Amino acid sequence: MTLQIAIAGLGTVGVGTFKILQEKAALLERRSGRTVKVTAVSSRDKSRDRGIDTSNVAWEEDARKLCTRDDVDLVVEVIGGADGIAYDVCKSALENGKHVVTANKALIAKHGVELATIAEKNNVHLAFEAAVAGGIPILKALREGLAANEFRHIVGILNGTCNYILTTMEETGRDFGDILKEAQDQGYAEADPSFDIDGIDAAHKLAIIASLAYGVKINFDDVFIEGIRDIALLDITSAKELGYKIKLLGMCRKTADGIEARVHPCMVPEKYPIAKVDGVFNAVIAQCDHAGKSIYEGRGAGEGPTASSVIADIMDIAADRASYPFNMPVASLESLPIIKMDALKSAYYIRLNVVDEPGVLAEITKIFQEHSISMKSLLQQARNPAKHVQVVVTTHATKEKEMMSACKKIANLRSVQEAPHIIRIEELV
Amino acid sequence: MTLQIAIAGLGTVGVGTFKILQEKAALLERRSGRTVKVTAVSSRDKSRDRGIDTSNVAWEEDARKLCTRDDVDLVVEVIGGADGIAYDVCKSALENGKHVVTANKALIAKHGVELATIAEKNNVHLAFEAAVAGGIPILKALREGLAANEFRHIVGILNGTCNYILTTMEETGRDFGDILKEAQDQGYAEADPSFDIDGIDAAHKLAIIASLAYGVKINFDDVFIEGIRDIALLDITSAKELGYKIKLLGMCRKTADGIEARVHPCMVPEKYPIAKVDGVFNAVIAQCDHAGKSIYEGRGAGEGPTASSVIADIMDIAADRASYPFNMPVASLESLPIIKMDALKSAYYIRLNVVDEPGVLAEITKIFQEHSISMKSLLQQARNPAKHVQVVVTTHATKEKEMMSACKKIANLRSVQEAPHIIRIEELV
Repeated sequence: MTLQIAIAGLGTVGVGTFKILQEKAALLERRSGRTVKVTAVSSRDKSRDRGIDTSNVAWEEDARKLCTRDDVDLVVEVIGGADGIAYDVCKSALENGKHVVTANKALIAKHGVELATIAEKNNVHLAFEAAVAGGIPILKALREGLAANEFRHIVGILNGTCNYILTTMEETGRDFGDILKEAQDQGYAEADPSFDIDGIDAAHKLAIIASLAYGVKINFDDVFIEGIRDIALLDITSAKELGYKIKLLGMCRKTADGIEARVHPCMVPEKYPIAKVDGVFNAVIAQCDHAGKSIYEGRGAGEGPTASSVIADIMDIAADRASYPFNMPVASLESLPIIKMDALKSAYYIRLNVVDEPGVLAEITKIFQEHSISMKSLLQQARNPAKHVQVVVTTHATKEKEMMSACKKIANLRSVQEAPHIIRIEELV
Repeated sequence: MTLQIAIAGLGTVGVGTFKILQEKAALLERRSGRTVKVTAVSSRDKSRDRGIDTSNVAWEEDARKLCTRDDVDLVVEVIGGADGIAYDVCKSALENGKHVVTANKALIAKHGVELATIAEKNNVHLAFEAAVAGGIPILKALREGLAANEFRHIVGILNGTCNYILTTMEETGRDFGDILKEAQDQGYAEADPSFDIDGIDAAHKLAIIASLAYGVKINFDDVFIEGIRDIALLDITSAKELGYKIKLLGMCRKTADGIEARVHPCMVPEKYPIAKVDGVFNAVIAQCDHAGKSIYEGRGAGEGPTASSVIADIMDIAADRASYPFNMPVASLESLPIIKMDALKSAYYIRLNVVDEPGVLAEITKIFQEHSISMKSLLQQARNPAKHVQVVVTTHATKEKEMMSACKKIANLRSVQEAPHIIRIEELV
């Protein structure tokens, strides 16, 4: 019995999926025990040359129409976007008794539980391995391979663009804007880069990981998100001097108070495995109660890696071995709050832009003291009497609430030129 | 419908599995949708205190008896050994319509295909995630997560004891025997360490990986195996000088001539991810045609990690999502020969123990020249006229056959004190 596939969206990933399903038809059948065949596709511009032969498949200009075709058992949604047509297609496909495989992290982070509910009701599968960490089969590992475990924490480098920029800053000594522009020119970064560099893309992936690993419904809007836009070269060089690397990390864990889920730049000890993940690579570290620490690293984006994960989901469905999307029926998922950042305890790195004059540092250290913040190091980059200098401070573990309050007061000091830039120091990943 | 488990063997892994199945019963049921319960166990000495309460489960002194019990659906075999009782139990359980989950790499490397055939005939599952790389769900990743891919090659650090010894030699400058003895005293290494340090354990795991990844039957006896017994401290320090690290690697790939499957010490560039995997950790790198390179790292042994993988297999069976053990029906597996090492092309590191007298190096380089071996570097460690000195040579890529023939001739030179020690240099992992 052939599994009939429709591909909604013929961008890079859609085309990649189409190609592999055609070129590898025999191998995929040998592995899944079932013929998998594309019967229909949808994209707006039929005339564009995509390097694939679609003459033998039906073409729908409106992707929604794929969802009601009799010759379609499974819809691959690779249109993108949290709402709009992508949402319509996934919902309608499931309601019409078609399986859905999607690479759409924004959609799943926002509507995943709703779509999983519809899938259950209609006795079909919803799968989204490609939505998280591209070609790394991390959702399957967390859901099935590590099924015996509770996760002490999960930490990931979930956005290749950010990791590329941070790695390149470190390797070349060039600054953020310069490298971003180059990445945009070369097509590695989007024209509107905010989804990547402001941490939103990483947060979508983190929300999906947290939901699946801890069996909880996540309110995406409560995930704490801070991007890498404000990372200065001085932060990179200071990190190096202190024995750290700066990485944009997504982190989650479950505590008695709820779910911790946050994305922000971190300083991590340079000897840690996650500090060694460079360039466009993604990585996820799962700290488990029985299996201990395991690390998954690979390409987080691109035609081949993403299509690889789309097809892995298709193969699971073809071989009748697909799991619940969030690892258990929706009815079993808990609704837990995301813990407010105020409750976090962390060590901090703080970069201050101050006027180099007597008494400034005394004022700053006094504020730290008032907030019970214990300083670990203080380094003034150079003397520049009566003019601006950069000062970097690190602290011992302290409460985020106190740190934020102290930073507000410091920002108001007459000799402080701009709000302090903080980077949290993570020793536990 | 409860899935009823028997555990054959109450050593570390058996006890670990028992504990997790009891302590996590609720979570495992929430995740698999089915109650999983231990109903029977087997071990010779019932009186020994193992820290578990077996009063509510049946106890068989003869593990074979588990295979015919009506209250057993699945037998966990954690007795060990390629033949004897472990083999009897697995075979009999499958023949009696029980699923089998095993952590036994020797058994699967030798009898895996036979047992998979029996499992198919009896419509039950055979699973062995725990047999390879302990707590890392690598077989699932290769089989399902990367199902869209062909593997250009797969390379792994598959034995934690060897990696621990090599890492410790490098970090402490102590020699092989010294560290091995310490590891034995501390219980990290077996009293008879040959399975580990001679590469046999790693080869068992590699054979399983190769079989599953390439869909082939492997004749284990044809796998090339060389252990780390002859690695000298000078090799470690020379590697460092040359920008390499020494790792015991298992490597496989498929070519037009068959399957390449070999385990031996390698020098790998120190910047490569696999060079950074230290201590008891295991790691597997899969180079895929679509997903690109992905890396899986974690604990390769021990109660928790191994039991974690045993239970992952149980959960797959409980949730009715288990795959064919070798990723396809046995009838679809190809029978391919393992390529002889003679056909290999590699760069080499050679350590020579020679008498420091005029003409020795000329004789050696002449032999290399006669075998079309192109030298890349030559380093004599110190002068010691008329006495022994160590000389280390590296070569460009050359044929293994020529290298072996040259080494034989060099060993026969009057001024050469012992057979040359070679380590292959792998730049492609």
